[in-house]
Amino acid sequence: MDAYNLILKKKNGLELSASEIEYLIKNYSSGALPDYQMSAFLMAICWRGMSEQETVDLTTAMINTGKILKLTEEFDCLVDKHSTGGVGDTTSLIVSPIVAAAGCVVAKMSGRGLGHTGGTLDKLESLPGFNIDLTNAAFINQLKQIGLAIIGQTSELAPVDKKMYALRDVTATVDSIPLIASSIMSKKIAAGAPKIVLDVKVGSGSFMKSVADARKLADIMVQIGRALGKDVIAVLSNMNNPLGMAVGNILEVKEAIDFLNGNYSDDLFQLCLELSVQILISAGKCRQRAEAVTLVNRMIDSRKALDKLAEMVEMQGGEQGYIYDTSRFPSAAHIVEIKSTHQGYIAGIDALMVGRAAMELGAGRATKKDEIDLQAGIKLLRKSGDYVRKGQVIAEMHTNKPEKTAPCQALFLNAVTFCEEKPKSCPSIIEIIT
Amino acid sequence: MDAYNLILKKKNGLELSASEIEYLIKNYSSGALPDYQMSAFLMAICWRGMSEQETVDLTTAMINTGKILKLTEEFDCLVDKHSTGGVGDTTSLIVSPIVAAAGCVVAKMSGRGLGHTGGTLDKLESLPGFNIDLTNAAFINQLKQIGLAIIGQTSELAPVDKKMYALRDVTATVDSIPLIASSIMSKKIAAGAPKIVLDVKVGSGSFMKSVADARKLADIMVQIGRALGKDVIAVLSNMNNPLGMAVGNILEVKEAIDFLNGNYSDDLFQLCLELSVQILISAGKCRQRAEAVTLVNRMIDSRKALDKLAEMVEMQGGEQGYIYDTSRFPSAAHIVEIKSTHQGYIAGIDALMVGRAAMELGAGRATKKDEIDLQAGIKLLRKSGDYVRKGQVIAEMHTNKPEKTAPCQALFLNAVTFCEEKPKSCPSIIEIIT
Repeated sequence: MDAYNLILKKKNGLELSASEIEYLIKNYSSGALPDYQMSAFLMAICWRGMSEQETVDLTTAMINTGKILKLTEEFDCLVDKHSTGGVGDTTSLIVSPIVAAAGCVVAKMSGRGLGHTGGTLDKLESLPGFNIDLTNAAFINQLKQIGLAIIGQTSELAPVDKKMYALRDVTATVDSIPLIASSIMSKKIAAGAPKIVLDVKVGSGSFMKSVADARKLADIMVQIGRALGKDVIAVLSNMNNPLGMAVGNILEVKEAIDFLNGNYSDDLFQLCLELSVQILISAGKCRQRAEAVTLVNRMIDSRKALDKLAEMVEMQGGEQGYIYDTSRFPSAAHIVEIKSTHQGYIAGIDALMVGRAAMELGAGRATKKDEIDLQAGIKLLRKSGDYVRKGQVIAEMHTNKPEKTAPCQALFLNAVTFCEEKPKSCPSIIEIIT
Repeated sequence: MDAYNLILKKKNGLELSASEIEYLIKNYSSGALPDYQMSAFLMAICWRGMSEQETVDLTTAMINTGKILKLTEEFDCLVDKHSTGGVGDTTSLIVSPIVAAAGCVVAKMSGRGLGHTGGTLDKLESLPGFNIDLTNAAFINQLKQIGLAIIGQTSELAPVDKKMYALRDVTATVDSIPLIASSIMSKKIAAGAPKIVLDVKVGSGSFMKSVADARKLADIMVQIGRALGKDVIAVLSNMNNPLGMAVGNILEVKEAIDFLNGNYSDDLFQLCLELSVQILISAGKCRQRAEAVTLVNRMIDSRKALDKLAEMVEMQGGEQGYIYDTSRFPSAAHIVEIKSTHQGYIAGIDALMVGRAAMELGAGRATKKDEIDLQAGIKLLRKSGDYVRKGQVIAEMHTNKPEKTAPCQALFLNAVTFCEEKPKSCPSIIEIIT
C-alpha cells in the first residue's frame, strides 16, 4: 500500500477500503504522510466524494488516532449536543443547563468561533474567570456533582482532526460533506456519549446553504453514529436569519440568561425547545413529546436551568453573580443605533452579512490568530415579520472600534430586506432526521 | 490576491486570470507558496481542467521563473524536437543528426527515462565518456561548429517545472493535459528555438492512451506555441507497439547507428522520416515534402547523418569509434531467447508490457533514484504482422539479473497477441497537427 496509489484511486473515483483509509489517516497523524499528499487527497475527496462506508471508515480512522472517553461506564443518561455553527447561536448555553437540570449528564466539548460564526468557548469566556481547561479528574468530578460541564476540545480525542482541519482551512477543501461529517463525528464519538443530538444549520449564515446539502450532511452523520453504535438525531434548523436577538459574545450570554429567566424570542425558543425535547426523549428521560415539552418549560419556569448554569459557572471558576445580575457585564464603549431606511415589513435579515458585520465590529476572528472583543456585536431590536417605520431603530452596534460603525451600518442595512405584506413566518425547524 | 481564494476559484470551476496564475507559480517557485497548497491546486486542475488561455498563461508563468535562451540571434535554422515518451523511442538519436547534417541547428535538451519509458540522456550515456553537462559557452561553441548538441535540461530554464513535476509525481496529478502541455512547452519555449516539432505518442506505451486525448494535448501545445510566437507542429504517432526492434539503452543506441547505416525497421523509418521532413520544411530548408524526403534519404545514404552523430559524440567527450563499430559496446551477461508459444500472425506486442519487462530486466527506473543497467533490455526479432511458428525465437532478453528472465519472459509472452489472418499494417503516423 502506498499513498500515491491511494490518492490516484480516489482521484479516479474508486472506493477506498477501510484499511486503505486507515493507512492514510494513521500515517498523516504520525507525520509519515506529508501535508502535500494529504491536501491532494482531500481535494480528490472534494471532487469525487465518499461513499457512506468510506465516510464511516474515515471517521473510525480519525477516532483511532486518539483516546476514546469511556464515560458511559460512570454515567447514565450521558448526552451530547453539537451545532454546525451559525450566527447568534446561543443554543448550547441554553439547552445544556435545561437538560442537565432535567437529569441528563451533559459532558460537552466546544469550539471557538471563526469568521462570521461564533463559538461557545468564546461566549463562556465572557464570564470573568471561567476556565475551559479542566483536568480529566476535575471534569469527571464536576459531572458527578452537577451533571454539566462545558470545556475545550481536548487534543487527546481524534487529534488528527485538528491537523486535517488546519490543512483544509488553507487548501480550500473545507466544504466537503464527508470531510465535515467525519470531522464532527470523530470528536463527538470519541467523547463517549451514547446519545448525540446535532443541530444542522441551513441557510446563508451556515456552511450548508441548501436544505438538500444539509440533509445529506445530517443523513451521513446519523449513519456514522448508527454504524458506530451511537444514537444520533439531527435537527435541521433555519440559519437564513440570525438566531435570537444577539450576535456577539457577551450579548449572547446575556440573551441566554434572559432566556433561562423566561424572556426569549420565538425562533430561539422553538429551536432550544426542540433540541431539548430530542435529547430528553433520546436519553429516556421522557417517553412522549408532550411530556418532554412540559419538562423543558418547568426547568425554565422554575429557574432550575438558570441555577444549573450558575452552578457550572461557579465550578469552572467564574462568578455566579453574573448569571443573576447581567448588568455586571461590561459594555462596549460605543453603542450606535441603526435606523431603518425603509418602511414596511422586514422580510429577512441575512445571517451571513450580520455575522460579518459583527465580526468587523470585533466580535469574531477573520483568522484563527485574531483576538476577539467579547463586548462587541450587534443587538437586533426588530426581526423578520416586524413592521418598521422609516427612521425607527432596528438594531444596535456594540463596538470599541468607532471607525467600524459606518461600514458596518451599511453592511447591516444591506442585509435587511423589506416587503409590503406581512411575510409568512419561517419555521425554525426544517426537519428532524433520525 | 491570496492562494486560498485562487485554489477555491479553480476548485469551483472558474477561470483564473494571467496575473492570478502568475501569482501562484511565482510564489511556488520562490518557496513562498507551500507544497500543500500547490498540490491542492494541481488536483483542482486535474478536476476542472484549464482553458486554452489559462494553459498559455500557466506556460508563460513557468517560463518566467527562469532564463530564456536567446539562441535565435546567433543561429539561423534553429530547431527543436520533443517526444512525449514511449517504449523503444530512438527518434531523437536519429532525427537530430539527420536534420543537423541537412543544415539545421539542433540545440536539444533531453531528459531521463522513468518507469517503462526511456530517456535520451540515458541512451547517450551508453557511450563511455559522453558528457551531457556542457557549459553555456561550450554548448554554443559546439552548435557553431557542428550544429548539433544534446545536453541535459538545465535548471535555469523554467526551473519551477522541476519542482512542480516532483510534486505531481507524488500526488497523482501527472495525467492532466494542461499540466503536461505547460510542462513540456515551458522548457521548449525557454530553450529558444523558433521551430519545434513534437512527437506526441498515442497508445498503451505512452501517457496518452487515446487518440482523442493525444489530439487534445497536441492541439493545446500548438496553441501555446502560436500564442508565444513559435511555430509548433505535432506529429501524433502510434505507441501501441514498441518502436523499432530495440528497448533498452545500449540496444537502442546500436539500433540508431544501424538506422543511420541504412538498416531500419519500417515503423521507425516512417516516424523518423516524418519528423525530419516536418523539421526541414518548418525550418525553411525545403519547400516541398518530396524535396524533404529526398534530402533525408540522402543524409542517410551518404552517411552524412552518421558522421554528424559521430562528431557530436566526439565533441561531447565520447569516442566516435563506437559509432563506426558497434561491436565495441559491452553486452549483458545473460542473453535469453524468448520462443513463441503460438503459431500465427503477430497481431500486436503491447508496448507498456514490453516496457515494463525491459525495466524489470534493468533497463529502466521504477523510481527516480534507481540506477539503470545500460546493457539491459529487450531485442525484438519479430514484430506485428510477422508470421511465426510455435517454438520460433521472437525476442531476446538482455540482462545482468538472471533471476528476472523467467518473470519477464512470461510478461513478454503476455504482451504478444496472435491472429490467423495477416493483420493490416498499422500506420506509424496517425495525424499531423499544425
